[in-house]
Amino acid sequence: LTAESARVPSASGKRDATRTVHRHDTFTTPEMSIIFSAETRVQRMLDFEAALAKAEARAGVIPAESADAIVSKCRAQLVDVSKLEEEGAAAGAHAIPLVRMLTELVDESARGFVHWGATSQDVVDTALMLQARDAVRVLEEQLSAVGAACLSLAERHRRTPMAGRTLLQHASPITFGLKAAHWLALTTRQIRRLKELHDETIVVQFGGAVGTLAALGDAGMVVADNLAEELGLPLPDLPWHTDRDRVAELVATAGIVSGSMAKIATDVALLTQTEVGEVAEGSSGAHGGSSTMPQKRNPVDAIMAVASARLALGTVPVVFNAMVQEHERSVGGWQSEWAAVPDALSFTAGAVERVRSLLANIEADIERMRINLDMTGGQIAAEALTMALAPRMGRHEAYRLVAAACARADKEKTDLRAVAAQDDKVRGILTLEELERVFDPLSYLGSADAFISSAVARFKEVVEPYPKTT
Amino acid sequence: LTAESARVPSASGKRDATRTVHRHDTFTTPEMSIIFSAETRVQRMLDFEAALAKAEARAGVIPAESADAIVSKCRAQLVDVSKLEEEGAAAGAHAIPLVRMLTELVDESARGFVHWGATSQDVVDTALMLQARDAVRVLEEQLSAVGAACLSLAERHRRTPMAGRTLLQHASPITFGLKAAHWLALTTRQIRRLKELHDETIVVQFGGAVGTLAALGDAGMVVADNLAEELGLPLPDLPWHTDRDRVAELVATAGIVSGSMAKIATDVALLTQTEVGEVAEGSSGAHGGSSTMPQKRNPVDAIMAVASARLALGTVPVVFNAMVQEHERSVGGWQSEWAAVPDALSFTAGAVERVRSLLANIEADIERMRINLDMTGGQIAAEALTMALAPRMGRHEAYRLVAAACARADKEKTDLRAVAAQDDKVRGILTLEELERVFDPLSYLGSADAFISSAVARFKEVVEPYPKTT
Amino acid sequence: LTAESARVPSASGKRDATRTVHRHDTFTTPEMSIIFSAETRVQRMLDFEAALAKAEARAGVIPAESADAIVSKCRAQLVDVSKLEEEGAAAGAHAIPLVRMLTELVDESARGFVHWGATSQDVVDTALMLQARDAVRVLEEQLSAVGAACLSLAERHRRTPMAGRTLLQHASPITFGLKAAHWLALTTRQIRRLKELHDETIVVQFGGAVGTLAALGDAGMVVADNLAEELGLPLPDLPWHTDRDRVAELVATAGIVSGSMAKIATDVALLTQTEVGEVAEGSSGAHGGSSTMPQKRNPVDAIMAVASARLALGTVPVVFNAMVQEHERSVGGWQSEWAAVPDALSFTAGAVERVRSLLANIEADIERMRINLDMTGGQIAAEALTMALAPRMGRHEAYRLVAAACARADKEKTDLRAVAAQDDKVRGILTLEELERVFDPLSYLGSADAFISSAVARFKEVVEPYPKTT
Amino acid sequence: LTAESARVPSASGKRDATRTVHRHDTFTTPEMSIIFSAETRVQRMLDFEAALAKAEARAGVIPAESADAIVSKCRAQLVDVSKLEEEGAAAGAHAIPLVRMLTELVDESARGFVHWGATSQDVVDTALMLQARDAVRVLEEQLSAVGAACLSLAERHRRTPMAGRTLLQHASPITFGLKAAHWLALTTRQIRRLKELHDETIVVQFGGAVGTLAALGDAGMVVADNLAEELGLPLPDLPWHTDRDRVAELVATAGIVSGSMAKIATDVALLTQTEVGEVAEGSSGAHGGSSTMPQKRNPVDAIMAVASARLALGTVPVVFNAMVQEHERSVGGWQSEWAAVPDALSFTAGAVERVRSLLANIEADIERMRINLDMTGGQIAAEALTMALAPRMGRHEAYRLVAAACARADKEKTDLRAVAAQDDKVRGILTLEELERVFDPLSYLGSADAFISSAVARFKEVVEPYPKTT
Repeated sequence: LTAESARVPSASGKRDATRTVHRHDTFTTPEMSIIFSAETRVQRMLDFEAALAKAEARAGVIPAESADAIVSKCRAQLVDVSKLEEEGAAAGAHAIPLVRMLTELVDESARGFVHWGATSQDVVDTALMLQARDAVRVLEEQLSAVGAACLSLAERHRRTPMAGRTLLQHASPITFGLKAAHWLALTTRQIRRLKELHDETIVVQFGGAVGTLAALGDAGMVVADNLAEELGLPLPDLPWHTDRDRVAELVATAGIVSGSMAKIATDVALLTQTEVGEVAEGSSGAHGGSSTMPQKRNPVDAIMAVASARLALGTVPVVFNAMVQEHERSVGGWQSEWAAVPDALSFTAGAVERVRSLLANIEADIERMRINLDMTGGQIAAEALTMALAPRMGRHEAYRLVAAACARADKEKTDLRAVAAQDDKVRGILTLEELERVFDPLSYLGSADAFISSAVARFKEVVEPYPKTT
Repeated sequence: LTAESARVPSASGKRDATRTVHRHDTFTTPEMSIIFSAETRVQRMLDFEAALAKAEARAGVIPAESADAIVSKCRAQLVDVSKLEEEGAAAGAHAIPLVRMLTELVDESARGFVHWGATSQDVVDTALMLQARDAVRVLEEQLSAVGAACLSLAERHRRTPMAGRTLLQHASPITFGLKAAHWLALTTRQIRRLKELHDETIVVQFGGAVGTLAALGDAGMVVADNLAEELGLPLPDLPWHTDRDRVAELVATAGIVSGSMAKIATDVALLTQTEVGEVAEGSSGAHGGSSTMPQKRNPVDAIMAVASARLALGTVPVVFNAMVQEHERSVGGWQSEWAAVPDALSFTAGAVERVRSLLANIEADIERMRINLDMTGGQIAAEALTMALAPRMGRHEAYRLVAAACARADKEKTDLRAVAAQDDKVRGILTLEELERVFDPLSYLGSADAFISSAVARFKEVVEPYPKTT
Repeated sequence: LTAESARVPSASGKRDATRTVHRHDTFTTPEMSIIFSAETRVQRMLDFEAALAKAEARAGVIPAESADAIVSKCRAQLVDVSKLEEEGAAAGAHAIPLVRMLTELVDESARGFVHWGATSQDVVDTALMLQARDAVRVLEEQLSAVGAACLSLAERHRRTPMAGRTLLQHASPITFGLKAAHWLALTTRQIRRLKELHDETIVVQFGGAVGTLAALGDAGMVVADNLAEELGLPLPDLPWHTDRDRVAELVATAGIVSGSMAKIATDVALLTQTEVGEVAEGSSGAHGGSSTMPQKRNPVDAIMAVASARLALGTVPVVFNAMVQEHERSVGGWQSEWAAVPDALSFTAGAVERVRSLLANIEADIERMRINLDMTGGQIAAEALTMALAPRMGRHEAYRLVAAACARADKEKTDLRAVAAQDDKVRGILTLEELERVFDPLSYLGSADAFISSAVARFKEVVEPYPKTT
Repeated sequence: LTAESARVPSASGKRDATRTVHRHDTFTTPEMSIIFSAETRVQRMLDFEAALAKAEARAGVIPAESADAIVSKCRAQLVDVSKLEEEGAAAGAHAIPLVRMLTELVDESARGFVHWGATSQDVVDTALMLQARDAVRVLEEQLSAVGAACLSLAERHRRTPMAGRTLLQHASPITFGLKAAHWLALTTRQIRRLKELHDETIVVQFGGAVGTLAALGDAGMVVADNLAEELGLPLPDLPWHTDRDRVAELVATAGIVSGSMAKIATDVALLTQTEVGEVAEGSSGAHGGSSTMPQKRNPVDAIMAVASARLALGTVPVVFNAMVQEHERSVGGWQSEWAAVPDALSFTAGAVERVRSLLANIEADIERMRINLDMTGGQIAAEALTMALAPRMGRHEAYRLVAAACARADKEKTDLRAVAAQDDKVRGILTLEELERVFDPLSYLGSADAFISSAVARFKEVVEPYPKTT
């Protein structure tokens, strides 16, 4: 039994049958619920105890047969998790009942070597880091699927023109592919961020009572090395009982991932508005209905992605404030992490999964995009017209001319193109054919295509081989 | 079955046997876990549907026998809660599967009148308000017990001198009773705040699809009145689907209660420091031990109170940010409340319970308080000495003189009293007897006693009859 | 000149003496900037010292002529504010240099009675409360103007039909007046909340060094009463140096006001979208332009209201976390309030002012509202149709029928009304005339009118006489 | 003069022209105030315009002489900053008046090429990034000085024993050097974090109106490359107008730096407590006094570091929530960054500077550390005794024996060492000499020395050559 293989058996994506529902389930995934269940946490604490025993046996600190005896009992199934939770809550330290229960389980000859040289926080923090490692890997996979969906949209809609919207107003044309490329680039950066956590952030905690490893005498550093090896986690330069920048970074990263997902979901929700109608969530049965309005088709995934992300963001200040920890063990800050860190990663997984589902099933209405582009009677091309005139009359003069033309078009309820075509100054610079081109959205996309390619390339670099959408 | 009587049977303070553990349990109470369990939430949604049917029957909107048929099925035990949660999560709206399940349960003749004229959010928000009402009442009771414990300490230690500490430095004397009176006054104000929520904040939600009650034609206002009466909740002037100031106020109040509890807990934790030792948490078995240090007696309740409070505080920005809701139904903000509001109240209950336990079992070491008062060699009386001299030489001159005397005492490692007694200026103003009195902490307490009485009186006013501690 | 070398010359560590603007000015109002300027703060601290001297003279604690001498120097103009700020920052306590400077200003005979019996925090907290009182009054006035603008819209558009939008999708009809009535009710509640702060929340701080008023001997309570009277602020039952629930409530209220304003602003921003176009910000010169797109007319006030509100919301967790204050004087929490509380109120004022300007100049496009109502080919009346059929066939059957009709209309790209008119079941229940009525938005408004009246009445009750918009 | 009438005369709604101080100055440094002053911001925006002109001239997009003419006017001194701020606030976009003012300044021939192809957000974001680059470099230098002070303490106190404190209780011995080494390691990691920002996070913003660079036709990518080169900032793969993960990361990093500083400051504040007295802030004149208590010597730097850090932490949720930005330009989120990002970096600088001052002047009382170590009558060696016995009797049996011995020592008010010396089981395992060693703190430090060396080595690696403290 290595720590790595000690995966809780039911981590198959099915919700654990023995677990009743919790109101947070709506905002996370079954897989993440299992990673952060009380049962898995107990297993991860036992993984620490098992790895510690092996590390100490290898260093000659405890007998090899005692280590074997301890390791053989480090299975969550042997422990009464409810009782452990209750006692742990009372004691304000779950490692205390765990060590007692494990000691009782172990053969008498080996019993004296359980938890040798470690302190409660070593167990609890390392267990959290093992859970975090699993959670971060899950997030990476989830985000790869989001990225794949974005990539697919970016490629498919490279030349699908769409209104670019700034401050919710039509600005200049973009393509739907460029929008998807932004989502892709954002997603790719989050995957990179998560990957970077494995080197410096998700590390072993091992320092003993006050961070000196004094209980191990001269063997502290050797045991620490062995322990890290057993667990497959990096060993940091110092124990970090009250130095919580790593935990803050982990949760900040979850927050940034969540914020990124909420950005994508918000874009989609805005595009689904009745008046916009450029995309819709794919219908999958009961999806998006209303209890009283039969016609409704609500952007459920987008909404729940935003909600989950907001909940994840709520954990960030908790963990950041909890950085201020007293001396060698914290008075409340550390303990608040026990709920806040799992919540951060769980809610983030919920947000990512909703965005994945959203993008995998999205329906784009290309025709509607085109109709919307025409809504302003050509004014979406105002900048294009300005820049077509600018080389001859200067940007600021051209700006004024076009602004006046827009005002006239508004007043006369006519088309900017018509106004421009009748303007002598304009016609002195642009032929009718050139003017036609100015008002063609596909002719005013600048580097959009290059940006899409760049986003696609970067994703393929980071996620190799990148997953296929179905 | 009235809504009021529809309390979930197991709300006795025991944890529901069918519920496995959740990592948040450590930071709340069993009673609050039940109030906010998935099962109770379903019952509260059914309470709404039952009350709605009765309200509509009374208004002649639906037949009385149909209402009876509906009411008879509004029991959570008849519903598959796990399935409802799963479908609700998928739909982003738990009322949709609930209405469907209830419709299926109801006799065919009455089926057509289920959920008449209401919208999903009416059900979900009113259910939350019913849960909030119960939760707030529980908090009031919990805080009354905290207040009673403070009152007892305030009375018992009215004349127990203790160092007043500003910026963690000895300042001037107070009494332990005065410190407890501050905790008491703080607690009393929180009880008052919670009581005020019942009038304007915890109210019925009823507006139909877009807040017009259009589905009820002209009967909307009558049904709304009846509904409020059935539920025993106030009816607000307008539906408030996307006007969330009330929810923000509810959660802000929870946050302020939590912050207040954390203040008390932090004071206690600081007083338990090895070097201070003025109070200790009462030992109750495994309380406060360490997995590796046999001598430890940790202030567990204080620590866990702080941790629970920090988690409650984390919900405040979530709910405040969620106030910004779109048009007639929110895109993510409202949905985030489903987790954040229960969390706010649950974690707050956890904080209050820890402080209650802390204060009910606290052990005060009066002797140690006295020893600590003497630590500075009388310098804690520096202000007392200043003010004794000030009427004759002016406050600022007296300040300078005493500052110099303190510096001399530090340099000569002697007592401020001795330095003062040898100072001609001092002796020109104060007799040795008067000087003696200056250095007696009990003679420099000003209005402390009056403040204690004031805090006690206010508490008794607010909590009548106030509970007894055991 | 390269960018790299473009360092501002004065980057030598000295502060620029001519600086007059601050980046926060964009997010507040000039009036609020003055209330919270360093100069006004000094004046408010001096107000405390003056009131204290008078209070003590009245109680016979200090000579009346000394009080007069002190009062005559309590003018900010006599003080070097820059120097005071610098020394106050160094000392971590602005009252220390203030008391010194004031002492130096006062005639020698009275000098000894300056700051008699008070502590630094008494000065600083009471000054903040005086500033808060002014700020809250300003907010009340600002919100009254917002309310007046809402009231005007609510009355004018009582019968202007508009699409009700849930989850950003057309739901059922409302009126623009009802939407404005919601904004009004929300605003009215905020005014009420602010008014309530004056009784229990914005109070005198006066406790002396450790909250005992020991330096005043037996005269503490009398001086405290007099002081409160002089300042026109209520006296609380106890000093509250480290009991910060009141400050938290003040800032929470600011946060709730800000969140309310952001809700209104967000509604407006969504309505200004190019595809929606139901309202526009009134043009006032340069308002809403773009540096590169001549056609743009951006909802600047709405955007800046949201931005200001978000900044205000950022102060809430700072102040809530700062509630946890140590013993008799806080180690960092209190000090963070010095920036966070003024910021909270200042940013809130910014948000309210932007919303006031927004609503005072808003342009409503009634025709566009009507056009948008028709966008779904009558599906916005799906609930109306359901409820028209429900009395005869049951709500759930009617729901199914109408859902199927909507699907057919979508598929056949036709009107729901046409589909309904051809449906035998529908025609068995509804005449063509009744069907016509179902699809008239003005006939499906339920209690909208009553709700508007209720919101108007409540505002007039709270703001009496309520201000007129211009 | 009543308090009520003491309104500052200029409260007329006009901003005071002579204002030079801002309440935030207390919580930052003069250097940072300059980096984020309105004047510097204008200069940074002009740096963008200058670099843009040069980049476009090099790409042949605009004439070289026009570029020169533009560059020559890109000096903040030529601009009326107050007016720009006022107009920028009104327009919700400071680049609009800036471009207008710059255009007016530039020679007529070149005027038409100002701001060619860019959008307001390109200017504002790139200016912020230039400010951020300067600010981050300043923070790196500040933190290097903090680290140097920590290193000095770590080396000097490698063998200075001190009580290790967990949950504020004496646990096992550490050294003051080890505590300083933790501060050092924490600081080193923050420097590394800041350095990493320069590669991926602090980058050029350049996309034109909607992120396509359409106004530059085919020249977009070349101009972008040139622009990045001119500014000395990296060019990202895509413009990032509404993709704000980088900004979130920047502010999260500031938050983590601040939290780290607050941890150090809190440790120091706790050590300065009257009852602990192991360190004191070095006195520098007025430092740490009280307005009423002459004896006080308050840990002012520590307190103000905590306060500044708390304010910095308040900006994190603002910026994280602001990540959710709409389509191609944000409605309020982006705008809130204009205050929040400078605040984040400014308050962080304040926290770092206070900690630097704190550590540079700290006074350690080695004797008092030793006295405190002895406070528990040897119980601080309880774990040491346990581990000395454990190899022979098992850890859990040893734990029980020592726990009982501690209880006896408490009861009999005697020394643990005495109790142990009289215990037959103990004496059967340990000689008196060995027992002596158990109670010597210097013999129970495990790997402390190695950890110190490791922290020192890592700092020297990261900061090369590392600065000297004075």
